[in-house]
Amino acid sequence: MSDQQGLFVKMALDAWNSEITATNALLAKLSDEQLMREVTLSRNRGIYLLGHLTSVHDRMLPLLRFEEMRYPELEPIFHDAPDRAVADLPSIAQLREQWKQVNDTLMGHMARLSAAEWFTRHANISEADFPKEPHRNRLNVVLSRTSHLAYHRGQLVLLVSK
Amino acid sequence: MSDQQGLFVKMALDAWNSEITATNALLAKLSDEQLMREVTLSRNRGIYLLGHLTSVHDRMLPLLRFEEMRYPELEPIFHDAPDRAVADLPSIAQLREQWKQVNDTLMGHMARLSAAEWFTRHANISEADFPKEPHRNRLNVVLSRTSHLAYHRGQLVLLVSK
Repeated sequence: MSDQQGLFVKMALDAWNSEITATNALLAKLSDEQLMREVTLSRNRGIYLLGHLTSVHDRMLPLLRFEEMRYPELEPIFHDAPDRAVADLPSIAQLREQWKQVNDTLMGHMARLSAAEWFTRHANISEADFPKEPHRNRLNVVLSRTSHLAYHRGQLVLLVSK
Repeated sequence: MSDQQGLFVKMALDAWNSEITATNALLAKLSDEQLMREVTLSRNRGIYLLGHLTSVHDRMLPLLRFEEMRYPELEPIFHDAPDRAVADLPSIAQLREQWKQVNDTLMGHMARLSAAEWFTRHANISEADFPKEPHRNRLNVVLSRTSHLAYHRGQLVLLVSK
């Protein structure tokens, strides 16, 4: 059983790591000036997407039952509100640093979790309900956030030639 | 073992189905005229992304060892060449129909595959090499194509207000 579990976990974490690596390579290529632009006319700016992804990944820390959020102050700006609703944003330099911190912290916890632990519940389902819905486990959070990251990376890449 | 395998298969197929459903809802909302527009200045048009996704999913049929490609003629236009390199494209009506056919065909095969079969090799790795790289299985193709779809859906959604 644990070999098989280990294989699933490797597949899911490989997909996550590959999205993170691709996003980091993209962010390294984008200047702060490019990140201040909209991905297309009247849509989200790069800075908003960077803050949004940082906040969503930060929220994964408690969701995966690792630790408290590092930067809860980002959530009202980059998750609960749309772009431009909040005038005073953190600097891009700060967001780049927080993005790195959050992902490094996640990665550290992820690497230490055993295969069996990945198949235990995430924080949004109770111990009582989990046996009825065993797919609502920690590894499933990684699968869904991998798609979420890919979705927004597909938008951020449009800033490359802007 | 097979319960655990079944759980992981369900997680991966749920993620795939959820991306397909979201993409279908988006395509239903986009007019043919919108699909002729660029997602942003000088980038891919909606029609190209629709053809690209159809061709990539069509290629999954042999890659998952289900059957031959249905529409191999799409590949040189929408995979091997960039947008605008080929002047004469299929109509959007035809691409919408092929997109549906390809995904319905995939879904039929996917639903019939047992959990254990999902963990057998995909077509791009030989039987000899597979034991050394057991993560190169059919289910991993689904994980990577789910991210690929999310990436391009994040771009197609930009056409909504255009």
